[in-house]
Amino acid sequence: MIRASVGIVPLVYEPGVLRVLDQSRLPSEQDWLDLREPASVIEAITSLRVRGAPLIGVAGAYAVALALRTVPLDMFPAAAGAIREARPTAVNLARSVDRVLRRIDGLAGRPGAVEAAEDEARTVHAEEAAACESIGRLGAELIPEGAGVLTYCNTGALATGGIGTALGVIRTAFEAGRVREVWVPETRPLLQGSRLTAWELGRLGIPHSILTEGATGSVLASGWVQAVVVGADRIAANGDFANKVGTYVMAVLAARHDVPFFVAAPLTTVDPQAPDGASIAIEDRPASELRFAGSTVVAPGDSPVLNPAFDVTPAELVSAIVTDRRVHLPPYDLRG
Amino acid sequence: MIRASVGIVPLVYEPGVLRVLDQSRLPSEQDWLDLREPASVIEAITSLRVRGAPLIGVAGAYAVALALRTVPLDMFPAAAGAIREARPTAVNLARSVDRVLRRIDGLAGRPGAVEAAEDEARTVHAEEAAACESIGRLGAELIPEGAGVLTYCNTGALATGGIGTALGVIRTAFEAGRVREVWVPETRPLLQGSRLTAWELGRLGIPHSILTEGATGSVLASGWVQAVVVGADRIAANGDFANKVGTYVMAVLAARHDVPFFVAAPLTTVDPQAPDGASIAIEDRPASELRFAGSTVVAPGDSPVLNPAFDVTPAELVSAIVTDRRVHLPPYDLRG
Repeated sequence: MIRASVGIVPLVYEPGVLRVLDQSRLPSEQDWLDLREPASVIEAITSLRVRGAPLIGVAGAYAVALALRTVPLDMFPAAAGAIREARPTAVNLARSVDRVLRRIDGLAGRPGAVEAAEDEARTVHAEEAAACESIGRLGAELIPEGAGVLTYCNTGALATGGIGTALGVIRTAFEAGRVREVWVPETRPLLQGSRLTAWELGRLGIPHSILTEGATGSVLASGWVQAVVVGADRIAANGDFANKVGTYVMAVLAARHDVPFFVAAPLTTVDPQAPDGASIAIEDRPASELRFAGSTVVAPGDSPVLNPAFDVTPAELVSAIVTDRRVHLPPYDLRG
Repeated sequence: MIRASVGIVPLVYEPGVLRVLDQSRLPSEQDWLDLREPASVIEAITSLRVRGAPLIGVAGAYAVALALRTVPLDMFPAAAGAIREARPTAVNLARSVDRVLRRIDGLAGRPGAVEAAEDEARTVHAEEAAACESIGRLGAELIPEGAGVLTYCNTGALATGGIGTALGVIRTAFEAGRVREVWVPETRPLLQGSRLTAWELGRLGIPHSILTEGATGSVLASGWVQAVVVGADRIAANGDFANKVGTYVMAVLAARHDVPFFVAAPLTTVDPQAPDGASIAIEDRPASELRFAGSTVVAPGDSPVLNPAFDVTPAELVSAIVTDRRVHLPPYDLRG
């Protein structure tokens, strides 16, 4: 059963048009964008209007179909390559693009190619939603009764198109009566926690509080957190994983306070080609994300800024990895 | 010798007028406010136009003098009490106010009382600046040669009226050739790191980079930090201390990466009445600090917000406490 996302639908495809909710404008505005060309999808992905590792995989798959419709045949391989590389860290994007390309191998330019690509993209989309359901069901059993749960960034319907990965676990555990409240770090610099996760939790009726990353330490020290659940953008074969920058900080805090730390992500997030975290490329984002709060200048123009989008958490800090297949326990071996 | 603060002067007193730089507007605007009544000083302190434990102590001392000038004699004790309690966590404010009150004990309303209060406030001010010099000199020797140093929040000239506490240590160590670069977490929610510390470091010509709190984990994991130096708002007798929320997170990260973690603060920050961190009152700040980025809404209006201004770091994570008197090493006993 795939549950309704209480109206939280980040992306809808109709032949020739990918409609996406502009997540960079939430929660104050709900703007929908009609994307008809791959360049528009790439812009939406790089500007984080569409974000979340599973969802950018889905968007990338649909973008290949849009490329078949709108890009001259001799430019199609370059267009597909550009979609594939719109963001480097999440493995889902490259994987989904490759999957649609395999489906239409030799068909590009022939009758039925567009339909085949759209069908494959819809399958990717449906499989991501189904994976969320499995992850939610498997992960919910790990959450202690009456738990305060801390999550990070946004891993919900907005990030996946399904019920979410880490947030899908939390939602499923809440519906089973296991979750007392959720702690939502705002997740600087783009505030996916306060802007997106809090918005989703509010719509789901799940008690929650927003706090700064700085305040997470006190909340853990106060004994208010019984489990930390986060998503992943890429998981290496040994269980090291990349996720939104700051995830590693949460893992270190959880370890200090003997709180279990769970990673929830579809199997498509596992990259068996990456033996460990050191082999995961980390995307640097623009300095402007730290220089401005809205239109207010909040940093001197001549001060350098370091703004990695992700960090790597070593497997030794991970209590379990929940994929749609099963709960993986340490020591991790995710090659197969 | 008290060094010039390269033009970074947060506060100037002339008889009857306390002129303060509005730190809530930095770095984009340098607005000076003329405060002539204690209520204006209290507003400036609670709105963080004047901030930093030592500087609010200095401002509070001058505010008592302004109260003597402007408040009817029968209202004076209430006015002094309101100044004393403008912010609860830093001990310096209450201590400076009490000191001026002791100096004018029995004199209020008589000739010479205002001058005595102003003289005492100037002494508090000068002593804070002198304390910074001592702290800087003593602390600089703890910094390894060629160190990357991570600090937190703002503890510089803006926070103290002298060269700063933690930032005074960093400046002194830099001038001695020991500091390679400084890592400046932005310090949510009010961004004292990116707005104030980066601005001071730029003016001092000290190489630095701004980063989110979330990115501090990667920077420590990369081996780019050889010392963490922070200030304190109140230090308990056993060495536990309160400082800007997030300080505890930095201490936990430093411990995980075997990086020394130093606290730099004047002896006036030690509260021998507080046996340990549990006895320090932590101020809660308004939810609006997390709900808006400039005028942009960044959190749902109905999501609760937890916004403590400070956290408590246990003494076991502190490698040394540098006061103006000496370098204190564990186990700490700061009662005397």
